[in-house]
Amino acid sequence: MPQTNGERVLADLKRLADFGRYKTGVHRPTYSPEDVASRHWLAEQFAAAGLDPVIDGIGNVIGRNPHASRRLLVGSHSETQPHGGWLDGALGVIYALELARAFAADPALAELGIEPVAWADEEGHFGNMLGSRSFTGALPESEIEAGKSRDGVALRAALVEAGLAGRPRETLDASRYIGYLEAHIEQGDVLDRAGEKIGIVEAIIGNSNYWVTVTGEQNHAGTTQMARRKDAAAVLMKLAARIYDRFAELAGPRTVWTIGRVLIDPNAPSIVPGRAEMQVQFRDTDTAYLQRFEAALLELVAAADRTGPCHIEIAPISRGVPALMDPAFQDLIEQAAERRAPGMHRRMPSGAGHDAQILSRRIRAGMMFVPSLKGVSHHWSEDTKEEDIVLGAQVFADAAASILQSD
Amino acid sequence: MPQTNGERVLADLKRLADFGRYKTGVHRPTYSPEDVASRHWLAEQFAAAGLDPVIDGIGNVIGRNPHASRRLLVGSHSETQPHGGWLDGALGVIYALELARAFAADPALAELGIEPVAWADEEGHFGNMLGSRSFTGALPESEIEAGKSRDGVALRAALVEAGLAGRPRETLDASRYIGYLEAHIEQGDVLDRAGEKIGIVEAIIGNSNYWVTVTGEQNHAGTTQMARRKDAAAVLMKLAARIYDRFAELAGPRTVWTIGRVLIDPNAPSIVPGRAEMQVQFRDTDTAYLQRFEAALLELVAAADRTGPCHIEIAPISRGVPALMDPAFQDLIEQAAERRAPGMHRRMPSGAGHDAQILSRRIRAGMMFVPSLKGVSHHWSEDTKEEDIVLGAQVFADAAASILQSD
Repeated sequence: MPQTNGERVLADLKRLADFGRYKTGVHRPTYSPEDVASRHWLAEQFAAAGLDPVIDGIGNVIGRNPHASRRLLVGSHSETQPHGGWLDGALGVIYALELARAFAADPALAELGIEPVAWADEEGHFGNMLGSRSFTGALPESEIEAGKSRDGVALRAALVEAGLAGRPRETLDASRYIGYLEAHIEQGDVLDRAGEKIGIVEAIIGNSNYWVTVTGEQNHAGTTQMARRKDAAAVLMKLAARIYDRFAELAGPRTVWTIGRVLIDPNAPSIVPGRAEMQVQFRDTDTAYLQRFEAALLELVAAADRTGPCHIEIAPISRGVPALMDPAFQDLIEQAAERRAPGMHRRMPSGAGHDAQILSRRIRAGMMFVPSLKGVSHHWSEDTKEEDIVLGAQVFADAAASILQSD
Repeated sequence: MPQTNGERVLADLKRLADFGRYKTGVHRPTYSPEDVASRHWLAEQFAAAGLDPVIDGIGNVIGRNPHASRRLLVGSHSETQPHGGWLDGALGVIYALELARAFAADPALAELGIEPVAWADEEGHFGNMLGSRSFTGALPESEIEAGKSRDGVALRAALVEAGLAGRPRETLDASRYIGYLEAHIEQGDVLDRAGEKIGIVEAIIGNSNYWVTVTGEQNHAGTTQMARRKDAAAVLMKLAARIYDRFAELAGPRTVWTIGRVLIDPNAPSIVPGRAEMQVQFRDTDTAYLQRFEAALLELVAAADRTGPCHIEIAPISRGVPALMDPAFQDLIEQAAERRAPGMHRRMPSGAGHDAQILSRRIRAGMMFVPSLKGVSHHWSEDTKEEDIVLGAQVFADAAASILQSD
């Protein structure tokens, strides 16, 4: 069994958190100077672990292992949400680095290669999981051309600024790997509330998103009688209320739904809104629920459009596809967890998206969670107990060894 | 009877619209260079009409008539909404100027004085009806100190920039006037649809506004199970739907209600909103309806707060007080309308607020409408037929003469 060094894992996580430190968290958006510096630092660590590091044209940092006969690709993303947490994806990247070192240090594991990777922009500063999609051949040049940040900075310009323009983009050779492993903080409070140490991910939820646009008629809120109004906000909020009610009736045990973004135009107190828009999102690991929700949503929108007085349109932004983690990988992660933390682990879905869902379309993939204190995520106050971080690294290494030794 | 000059009225309206012309409308926010220039131009016109003009410390332009024994204060506001219409308040200001000239030109009316006024900032660029409230002693210095524009420009700084700082603010001597008269475009389509020429305002609606704040808990929209969520947007939109339903049950024939402004925080597709806010507004000329609506609103908010899972607070922004126009003034305006446009006038409420509601708290007040084509208002395409503008000026002058000659 590989022996991980918990002190070294914690020290490296803290060193990585120096790049963009914000309060007890980190502000390190993709392609920011801090992000670029941290990727170069990671490449140095990969080199020090005896690997051939490469930073590719989208910012992925990969530590190639030239010697092994069987390989696992292991990693996560290294950029953070704005004013985000110090662990999040960084945890999985440093775990991967530690695994590479632990395997290299053990002559019994010499034939087994860990290739650590730090994906770029899983957090979506410039696109949607750019790094892992680029690596798996699912990021066309046209999307890079069109990409821009929430602040309107073009992806191309950001790549130039980051010194990445002109570098080739690395691509997956599926025959090179047994599979892909990713560790991450849970981002929910299931493990923390249960006092458990390890989550074995069964599936990453499919995330379906729709944009609803209500077109009414902007008018003076004093002089326009009710009977003559086409109030887009009124229609939208009544529709939203019906959506919440209907979704609650249809939901499975794991379905979640959110209307997180609402735009009212002109959004002035004394003007009858002429336009109102919202993004409706729902997630499940079961495609049947996603289909049921979509059908219900389209039906409610059509009914409200018929009722009037406003016109309503709905457009899909993304139709969620749940990603199943490899069953054999799940078993081996579970066995490793049971050895190191007997009875303190569980199989569970991932409610959040991860690079593993992209990789799982091409190679076998597995994922492991450590607890998030109080379930806090995407906030600088996110944290995990040091003892849980240390334990998680060892379980992860054990699982990787079992997977590499299995057929 | 005074004789108005329709050609002159139209020419002056067009000249005034040169200050900040935008397409077929006008962009002349309060204290902008265009607004300041137009106020100086108005002062010159008042002087040319034989009056003593003054531009006071809040920007009101008043044409003092030193000779008359009985006086009417007549006017409206001269700034516009952003990219607003060319008539709106400007119509009432130029009517007032024309009345002053028509009365001065008629020896039979020599004892009767029209004092035209162009109020500042009825449109609320920096506050709420600043000019008329200042004139009637209802604008404390503290509010001027705190005032700022939607863009964050301090009112004090704007007054300095406009060259108004240090000037005294004129105040109303109630004994000086028989009352106040204001003409304005209707801003609704009642007259236009009916093919009528004159509206006699019975009352200006009371406009009640409340700010509702829903406090939930911001969370990850993938990892936070529904049962544990405190989704502020969901609670707000369900509450809004109940408010719309309940208000429709309680409404009188003239009640209108609007939720025009909604704020969701952080308003991101994949984050459960932690905070949601909205402004709830309702208007009526009947205080009983306003009270009934307020009671229902407070009850719905309290019920939703009890139901959970979010905490809800409601704070009144303004409690509407309907302003009744003087009954004798109404009669005399109606008689003037019947003489010049038999059967083509009606008594009606004003759904929009006007400076007349402020003046009516101190002196008798009356208000007259001309039609708005298709009811368009607060938009550069707002318009009124020239023949209706010309007719309105004469009816307004006749009414003013009757009022000055009445006891």
